[in-house]
Amino acid sequence: MQHGRVLVLNGPNLNLLGQREPDLYGATTLPEIDATLVDLGRELQVEVECFQSNHEGELVDAIQGAPSRFDGIVINAGAYTHTSVALRDAFAGIGIPFVEVHISNVYSREEFRHKSLLSSLAKGVVVGFGPTSYMLGLRGLVDRLRSR
Amino acid sequence: MQHGRVLVLNGPNLNLLGQREPDLYGATTLPEIDATLVDLGRELQVEVECFQSNHEGELVDAIQGAPSRFDGIVINAGAYTHTSVALRDAFAGIGIPFVEVHISNVYSREEFRHKSLLSSLAKGVVVGFGPTSYMLGLRGLVDRLRSR
Amino acid sequence: MQHGRVLVLNGPNLNLLGQREPDLYGATTLPEIDATLVDLGRELQVEVECFQSNHEGELVDAIQGAPSRFDGIVINAGAYTHTSVALRDAFAGIGIPFVEVHISNVYSREEFRHKSLLSSLAKGVVVGFGPTSYMLGLRGLVDRLRSR
Amino acid sequence: MQHGRVLVLNGPNLNLLGQREPDLYGATTLPEIDATLVDLGRELQVEVECFQSNHEGELVDAIQGAPSRFDGIVINAGAYTHTSVALRDAFAGIGIPFVEVHISNVYSREEFRHKSLLSSLAKGVVVGFGPTSYMLGLRGLVDRLRSR
Amino acid sequence: MQHGRVLVLNGPNLNLLGQREPDLYGATTLPEIDATLVDLGRELQVEVECFQSNHEGELVDAIQGAPSRFDGIVINAGAYTHTSVALRDAFAGIGIPFVEVHISNVYSREEFRHKSLLSSLAKGVVVGFGPTSYMLGLRGLVDRLRSR
Amino acid sequence: MQHGRVLVLNGPNLNLLGQREPDLYGATTLPEIDATLVDLGRELQVEVECFQSNHEGELVDAIQGAPSRFDGIVINAGAYTHTSVALRDAFAGIGIPFVEVHISNVYSREEFRHKSLLSSLAKGVVVGFGPTSYMLGLRGLVDRLRSR
Amino acid sequence: MQHGRVLVLNGPNLNLLGQREPDLYGATTLPEIDATLVDLGRELQVEVECFQSNHEGELVDAIQGAPSRFDGIVINAGAYTHTSVALRDAFAGIGIPFVEVHISNVYSREEFRHKSLLSSLAKGVVVGFGPTSYMLGLRGLVDRLRSR
Amino acid sequence: MQHGRVLVLNGPNLNLLGQREPDLYGATTLPEIDATLVDLGRELQVEVECFQSNHEGELVDAIQGAPSRFDGIVINAGAYTHTSVALRDAFAGIGIPFVEVHISNVYSREEFRHKSLLSSLAKGVVVGFGPTSYMLGLRGLVDRLRSR
Amino acid sequence: MQHGRVLVLNGPNLNLLGQREPDLYGATTLPEIDATLVDLGRELQVEVECFQSNHEGELVDAIQGAPSRFDGIVINAGAYTHTSVALRDAFAGIGIPFVEVHISNVYSREEFRHKSLLSSLAKGVVVGFGPTSYMLGLRGLVDRLRSR
Amino acid sequence: MQHGRVLVLNGPNLNLLGQREPDLYGATTLPEIDATLVDLGRELQVEVECFQSNHEGELVDAIQGAPSRFDGIVINAGAYTHTSVALRDAFAGIGIPFVEVHISNVYSREEFRHKSLLSSLAKGVVVGFGPTSYMLGLRGLVDRLRSR
Amino acid sequence: MQHGRVLVLNGPNLNLLGQREPDLYGATTLPEIDATLVDLGRELQVEVECFQSNHEGELVDAIQGAPSRFDGIVINAGAYTHTSVALRDAFAGIGIPFVEVHISNVYSREEFRHKSLLSSLAKGVVVGFGPTSYMLGLRGLVDRLRSR
Amino acid sequence: MQHGRVLVLNGPNLNLLGQREPDLYGATTLPEIDATLVDLGRELQVEVECFQSNHEGELVDAIQGAPSRFDGIVINAGAYTHTSVALRDAFAGIGIPFVEVHISNVYSREEFRHKSLLSSLAKGVVVGFGPTSYMLGLRGLVDRLRSR
Repeated sequence: MQHGRVLVLNGPNLNLLGQREPDLYGATTLPEIDATLVDLGRELQVEVECFQSNHEGELVDAIQGAPSRFDGIVINAGAYTHTSVALRDAFAGIGIPFVEVHISNVYSREEFRHKSLLSSLAKGVVVGFGPTSYMLGLRGLVDRLRSR
Repeated sequence: MQHGRVLVLNGPNLNLLGQREPDLYGATTLPEIDATLVDLGRELQVEVECFQSNHEGELVDAIQGAPSRFDGIVINAGAYTHTSVALRDAFAGIGIPFVEVHISNVYSREEFRHKSLLSSLAKGVVVGFGPTSYMLGLRGLVDRLRSR
Repeated sequence: MQHGRVLVLNGPNLNLLGQREPDLYGATTLPEIDATLVDLGRELQVEVECFQSNHEGELVDAIQGAPSRFDGIVINAGAYTHTSVALRDAFAGIGIPFVEVHISNVYSREEFRHKSLLSSLAKGVVVGFGPTSYMLGLRGLVDRLRSR
Repeated sequence: MQHGRVLVLNGPNLNLLGQREPDLYGATTLPEIDATLVDLGRELQVEVECFQSNHEGELVDAIQGAPSRFDGIVINAGAYTHTSVALRDAFAGIGIPFVEVHISNVYSREEFRHKSLLSSLAKGVVVGFGPTSYMLGLRGLVDRLRSR
Repeated sequence: MQHGRVLVLNGPNLNLLGQREPDLYGATTLPEIDATLVDLGRELQVEVECFQSNHEGELVDAIQGAPSRFDGIVINAGAYTHTSVALRDAFAGIGIPFVEVHISNVYSREEFRHKSLLSSLAKGVVVGFGPTSYMLGLRGLVDRLRSR
Repeated sequence: MQHGRVLVLNGPNLNLLGQREPDLYGATTLPEIDATLVDLGRELQVEVECFQSNHEGELVDAIQGAPSRFDGIVINAGAYTHTSVALRDAFAGIGIPFVEVHISNVYSREEFRHKSLLSSLAKGVVVGFGPTSYMLGLRGLVDRLRSR
Repeated sequence: MQHGRVLVLNGPNLNLLGQREPDLYGATTLPEIDATLVDLGRELQVEVECFQSNHEGELVDAIQGAPSRFDGIVINAGAYTHTSVALRDAFAGIGIPFVEVHISNVYSREEFRHKSLLSSLAKGVVVGFGPTSYMLGLRGLVDRLRSR
Repeated sequence: MQHGRVLVLNGPNLNLLGQREPDLYGATTLPEIDATLVDLGRELQVEVECFQSNHEGELVDAIQGAPSRFDGIVINAGAYTHTSVALRDAFAGIGIPFVEVHISNVYSREEFRHKSLLSSLAKGVVVGFGPTSYMLGLRGLVDRLRSR
Repeated sequence: MQHGRVLVLNGPNLNLLGQREPDLYGATTLPEIDATLVDLGRELQVEVECFQSNHEGELVDAIQGAPSRFDGIVINAGAYTHTSVALRDAFAGIGIPFVEVHISNVYSREEFRHKSLLSSLAKGVVVGFGPTSYMLGLRGLVDRLRSR
Repeated sequence: MQHGRVLVLNGPNLNLLGQREPDLYGATTLPEIDATLVDLGRELQVEVECFQSNHEGELVDAIQGAPSRFDGIVINAGAYTHTSVALRDAFAGIGIPFVEVHISNVYSREEFRHKSLLSSLAKGVVVGFGPTSYMLGLRGLVDRLRSR
Repeated sequence: MQHGRVLVLNGPNLNLLGQREPDLYGATTLPEIDATLVDLGRELQVEVECFQSNHEGELVDAIQGAPSRFDGIVINAGAYTHTSVALRDAFAGIGIPFVEVHISNVYSREEFRHKSLLSSLAKGVVVGFGPTSYMLGLRGLVDRLRSR
Repeated sequence: MQHGRVLVLNGPNLNLLGQREPDLYGATTLPEIDATLVDLGRELQVEVECFQSNHEGELVDAIQGAPSRFDGIVINAGAYTHTSVALRDAFAGIGIPFVEVHISNVYSREEFRHKSLLSSLAKGVVVGFGPTSYMLGLRGLVDRLRSR
C-alpha cells in the first residue's frame, strides 16, 4: 500500500465533542479532529475521509460500503462499542482491517464500558489519550497496512 | 422557569399503544396520551411537544436537538430503556433535565426489564401507573424545573 | 371510591429527614411532608394519615391493620425496601393497593438499593423527585383507586 | 388459511450473504435464497415477500406493518436476535405468528450468540441447516398457520 | 423424654392464615392449627404451646427463652426463614432441637424462597403439605427427641 | 380414596442403607424401612409396595407404570434428585401425586445437594428425620390424597 | 447418498406422547409420529427406523451402533438433552451426522431447558413446531446428507 | 475531646455470651465484658455506657438517639451486621463516629458472615480477638476521636 | 496388602477407544489397554479385572459389588465424571479406595469437563497422559494400598 | 510467654508511607511507625523487629524463618493480602500466630480489596484506624499470646 | 516538559520476545524494540531508558524509584498486568504518568487477559499493534506530558 | 530421547515439606523426595535435577533457562499454580514439555485450589498421591518424551 485511503468512522454522540462533558472528553470539536486527521494522513501519505452518525444501521451501511473505496477504517463507535453485535458482524463480514479508538479512559468509567464487542477483531486498540487517540490509531493502522 | 417547554419522547412500539397487548398497556392510544399531556401542560403553564420513533438514532438526534428548544424531557424509551447506551450518552452529553416513565410495572415482568440504563441520570422515575405515569412524570419534571 | 382514606407509611430513619444527609434527602422534615400530604389529600378528597417506625414488625402490623380503615397505602419503606420479605408478604397477604415512593434516586446510589422487594406488587413506583415523590405517589394512588 | 401471505425478514449484514465469511455462511446470496423461497411458497400455495435492512428501526416498522398484509413472518434477525428488545416487543405487540431461522449453528459460535431474545415468542426455531433453514422455517410456519 | 414440652413458633404474617391468599395457604386459621397441634400433642404425650409474632426481635427472644421451658421447637419462620441470620444465630446459640415447617411449597414460588437460613441447623424440614406440615413436623420432632 | 395403594421408590445407593456411611444415614437397612412402611400403611389403610433401583431409566419406567396400579408415590430419588430431568419429566408426564423424602439433612451437606429437580412438582417434601422421613412422607401423602 | 437410512431416536418419557401434558406436547402419539416419519422417508427416498428408550445407556448404545447401519440420526433426546454428556460424547465419538429436534418451545419453558449439550455438534436444530419438528428435522437431515 | 462519652451497642444473641457456643465465643459473659469496658473507659478517661437488644428497630432507635449524649459508638451488631441496611442508614444519617467489632473470626465461618453492611462507614474494624476485640475497638475509637 | 485385586472401571463411550476421535484419544483400543493393565498388575503383584459400561446404573452396581472382591478401583468414568452424583455416592457409600484417570487433558477441553464430581473423594487423580494415565493410576493405587 | 518477640512484616509499597497518597494513608512514615511499635512493645514487654519488602518471595522467606526467632507476627501484607496464596500457605505451614492489619478502610475502597487471603487464618484482624491499626494489632497479638 | 526522560518497563517473559510464540508476538527481539524506542525518543526529544524483569518485586522497586529520574513510564507488564495489585499500588503511590502497552491483541486471547489491573490508572492504553504498540505508547505519553 | 535430562521444579513453601502440616502433606522432606526422584531417574535412564524457590520470578527464570539444558520439567508450583499467569506464560513461551504434580488432593481443599493456570498446557497432571505424585509424574513425563 503506497497511497492508501482510510475511513474514519464516529458513532453516536461524538458530534457533540467539545460541547459534551468537556471534563471527560476535552474541548476539541469533531471537525477539528477530522481536520487534524486529514493533515496527519497527508503526512503519512494516506487520504482520510470522515463520517459520523447516531444511527447504528447507517454505520453498518458505511462499513459494508468501505471495501470498494478504502484500505482500512479507524472507528470510535461510541456507545455502540458496547452493545452492537451488528457492527461486529459487519467488520467480520467484509474483513477490512480496522483500528478501534476511544477518547476517554473507558476502564476508569462505568463497568459496562470496559467490554468492547469490536476489540477481538481489531488490528489494534487505542484508549484514553484524548483526541490524540485518533492520531495514534491512524498511525497504527497505516503501519499495519504497510507491514502486510 | 415561568412558561417553559417540555419534550415528550416515546421509543419503539409505543405507537402501538391501545392496540398492543391491552391487558398490559391499556386501551388508551398514544395520540390520546399526547392530547392529555398538552392539556396538563397548559394547566401547569408549560408547552408540551410529543415525538415518537422506532429508530434509536432518531431518538438520539431528538435528544441532541432538545436543549435549544426545550427546558426538559419526559421519556418513555420503551425497549431502548434496557439496551441503549447511546440514549444514555445523549442525555449525559446535553445535560438537559429529564424524567423517565413507564406505563406497565416493569418490575413484575421479564428480568431484563428490571434494569434501566437511563435511571441513574434521571431527575426522577415513574413506573406502573398506566398512562397516568406520563402525567405524574410531567408534574414531577415541572416541579423539579421550578425548584431549581 | 368517593371520599377515601389513605395511609402513608414511612420506614426506618425517615424520622431523621431534614437532619440526615441533607445533600441526599433535602431539608424538608417528615412532619412538613406529612402536612403537605394531608393538604393534597384534602384537594384530592381523601383523608391522609401518616405513620413512621424504625421497627420492621411495627410496619408489618400497620399494613395488616390497614384494610379495615384505609383504601390504599403510600409507602417509603426506606432500608426495608431492599431487605424485608416480611413487608412484601404483608402486602401480598392483605391485598390492599399500594404505591412505593423514594425521595432520592436509588438508581444512582449503592447497588444494593437498586432492587426493591416491594415493586413487583405495587400499583406504581415513584423515585427521585425529593419530597415531591410522596405527592406524585398520592396522586397516582388516588387515580388508580378511582379508575377501578 | 388457504392462499396465505408470508413476509421473510432479514436483519443486519444478511445482504452480505455469499460474500461474507463463506466458510460460515456458504456461497448462496440473499437474492438466490429469496427466489427459492418464492418458489417454495408457490408450491405451498403462499405468496412470499422478502425484505432486508441493517436498521433496527426499519425492521420494527416492517413488523408493525405486517398484520395488515401478511399471515405470518419468517425472520432471520441476524445480530439483532441477541440484542434487540425492540424487535421482541414489536412481535409481542402485533401478535403475528413468526418463525425464527439461522443459517449457521449459533450454538457452536460465540457465547453471546447462544441466547435469542425472540425465541420464547416464536412458533418455532430452525438453526444451522445453511440456506435450507429458511425453507424448513417456511414449511414449519405454513404448517402452523394451517393447523390453527 | 417421656412427657415433654414443645414450643410452636410462627413468624410474620402467619396470623393472617385463612384470610391471606387462600389459594396459596388454604382456609384454615392459625388458632385452628394451634388447636389441632395441642390435640396431636396430647396424643403424642407432649404439651404444646403456640406463639406468633411479626417482630424478628420477639422471635429471637422467644427462642432464647425456650430452653428453660421446652424440649424442642417447631418453627414456621415465614419471611424471616429467608432473611434472618439473627434467628439462625439464636438457634445455634441455645442448641435446642427444632424442626422447620412451611405450609406452601416454597420450591414452586419465587427464587428467594428456595433458600432457608435455618435448614442446615434443623433436625428436619417439612414443606408443602398445607397445615398438615405442622402435624408432620411435630411428629418428627417428638420422634427425634425420643430417639436420642 | 378409601383403601389406596402407594408406591415407595428408592433411587441409587439406597440399597446400601445400614452399611453406607452410618454416621450420615443411620443403621437401619432398606428392607427394615420397607417393613415399617408396610406396617404404617396398614394402620393408614393403604397398601404399600417398595422398589429400589440404581438405574435412572428403571426409575423412569417405574414412575410411568405407576398410574395404573397406584394412587401416589413416596420417592427418595437419592443422587438423581439433583441431576435427573428425566425423573422430573416422568412425574410431570403422568401427573400422579408424589412426596419427596430424604434421610439426611441435605441442607447441611454439599451445595449441589441443596437443589432438587423434583421439589417444585411434589405435593410435599420431608428432609432430615432419618428413616422417619419415609413415615412422615407416607402420612403426608395419604393426608393429601384423602383431602382431595 | 441416494437411498439412505435414517435412525430416529427418542429419549425418556417421549413414549408418553399423546397422554403426557397434551397442552404442552399435543395429542399425537409416538407411534403416529413414527408412522408419519416412515411415510415422509419414503417420499424423500430414505428408510426410517425408530427407537425409544428411557435409559441413557441404551441411547448411548444405539448411537454407537448406528454408523454400521445408518447414514444419519434425528434425535429428540428429551430430558437427556440438558444433562447427558454421555450422549454428546457418543455423537462426537462416532461422528455420524445428526439433527436435534424438540416438540415444544424449550425457550419458553424452565431455564434449565434453554441449554442443550448436543446442539453445538448437530447439523441443525428444530424447535417448537409440535410433531412437525420431526418432519422438518428429517427433511433438513436428508438435505444435509445429499449436499455433502 | 477530653472527657468523652462512648456508647457500646450489642446486637441480637450477644446477651447469650458465655453460654452460647463457648468454643466459638468463649466463656466470658456480656456483663463481664461491659464491666471491663467501663474500667478501660475510666483508664482512657471516657464514660462508657452499654446497651444490648435483639430488636433491629431498638438498635436503630439507639443509634438515632446517640448524638445528643455520646461522642462515638462501639458496635457489635451480631447477625444484623450482615443483613441490616437500616442500621447502616442510621449511622449514615446521624454521622456519629463508630467502630465495628466482632468476637469470633467471621472470615473463617460461613460465607454470608464475610460481608458487613457497616464496615465501609466505620472508623475502624476489629475482628477475631475474642472479648479483647471490644477493648481494642474502644482504644481505637478514643484514639480516632482525640486525633480529630 | 500383599497380592491384592484391582477393578478397572470404564464409563460411557470408552469402548470406542481407538476408533473415536483419534486426535484426542489416540489409536490404542480398550482391550489393548486392559491387556497392558493386566500385565502391569502382574508386575506389581495385583490381579486386575476390567469392566466397561455405557450405563450409569451398571457402573453404580459394579462399584457397590466391588468391596467383596477387590481392594481398590481405577476408574475412568468418562462423561459421568462430570454429571453423576450417583457414582460419587456409590464410592462414598462403600468407602473403597479408588483412583480417577483421564486419557485426554480435560483442562484444555470444554469448561464442563474441568470439574469432576469424583475427584474430592479419590486417593489420587491422573490426567492427560493418554493410555499411560491408566498405568500411572494403577501404580499410584497400589502404592496407596501398600502404604496404609 | 513472659518476654516475647514479635516480627512486624510490611508488604509492597508500604515503604512509601507518608509520601504515598497521604489522603488515604496519612503523613506518618514507616520508620516512624516502626519506632512507635518498638516503644509500645517495650511497654507490653515484647521485643519488636520490623521488616518491609516489595518482593512476595522475600516475605514468604521471612515468614518461614520466623518460628525460630519470634513468638508471633503482625503483618500488613499490602497488595499481597488480596493475591498471594503463597503468603497464606507460608502461615499455614509454620503455624505461628499472626495478626493482620490495614491502615486504610479497605471496605470503602475497590471491591478487590474487600477480600483477604490471610484473614481466615489470622488470630485477629484490625482495619482502618490509620497507623494506630498496627498498635492495636500488636496489643491484640500480645493478648492472644499471653492468654494461651 | 522540553527534554524529558521516559522509563520503558517490561514484565515477565518479555525477554523471550522474538523466540517465544512468534505467531503471537512476532520475530522482533526486545533489544531491537529498545533500540527503536531510543531512536524514536531522540526524534521526540526525550531520553528513553529500558528495563525488563521477571520479578514482580523488582518491577515495584523500579516504579518506586522512577519519580526522581523520569517524567513518565511506558509499561508492558506482561502477565502481571492481570494479577499484580502491587504494581497498581506502586503507580497509585508515586503518581507518575504512565501508559500501558500490549504487543498482541489481548482481547482475542484467554478471558483472564481481558482485564488489566493497571488500565484505570493509565494515561492511555495501546493494544495489539505488535512492537509498534510501544512506539504509539511513547508518542502518546510524550503528547500527554507536553499538553499538561 | 535416549538419555534425557529432567528438571524438577518446586514452588513456594515446598521447602517446608515434612514440617509443614504433616496431616496434609506427610512426613517426607523435600530432599528425601529429590533423592528418590534422582534414583527413579537413574532407573528410567534420565538425569534429574531439582530446584525450589519461594520467588515467582526465580521460577520464571528457571523455566526460561530450561530448554538449553533439559528435555522436560516436572513442576509442583504450589501456591503459584493458582495465581501465576507469569509461570503459565513462561511455559507457553519456551514450549518445553512439562507435567504438573500436587502432593495433596487439591479438589478436597479450598475452592481456589481447584483451578490451575498451568493444567491446560501440561502434558499431564498428577494429583493427590502424596510424594508418590512426583514419581508418577516423572514416569509419565519420560513416557511422553519417549513416545514423541
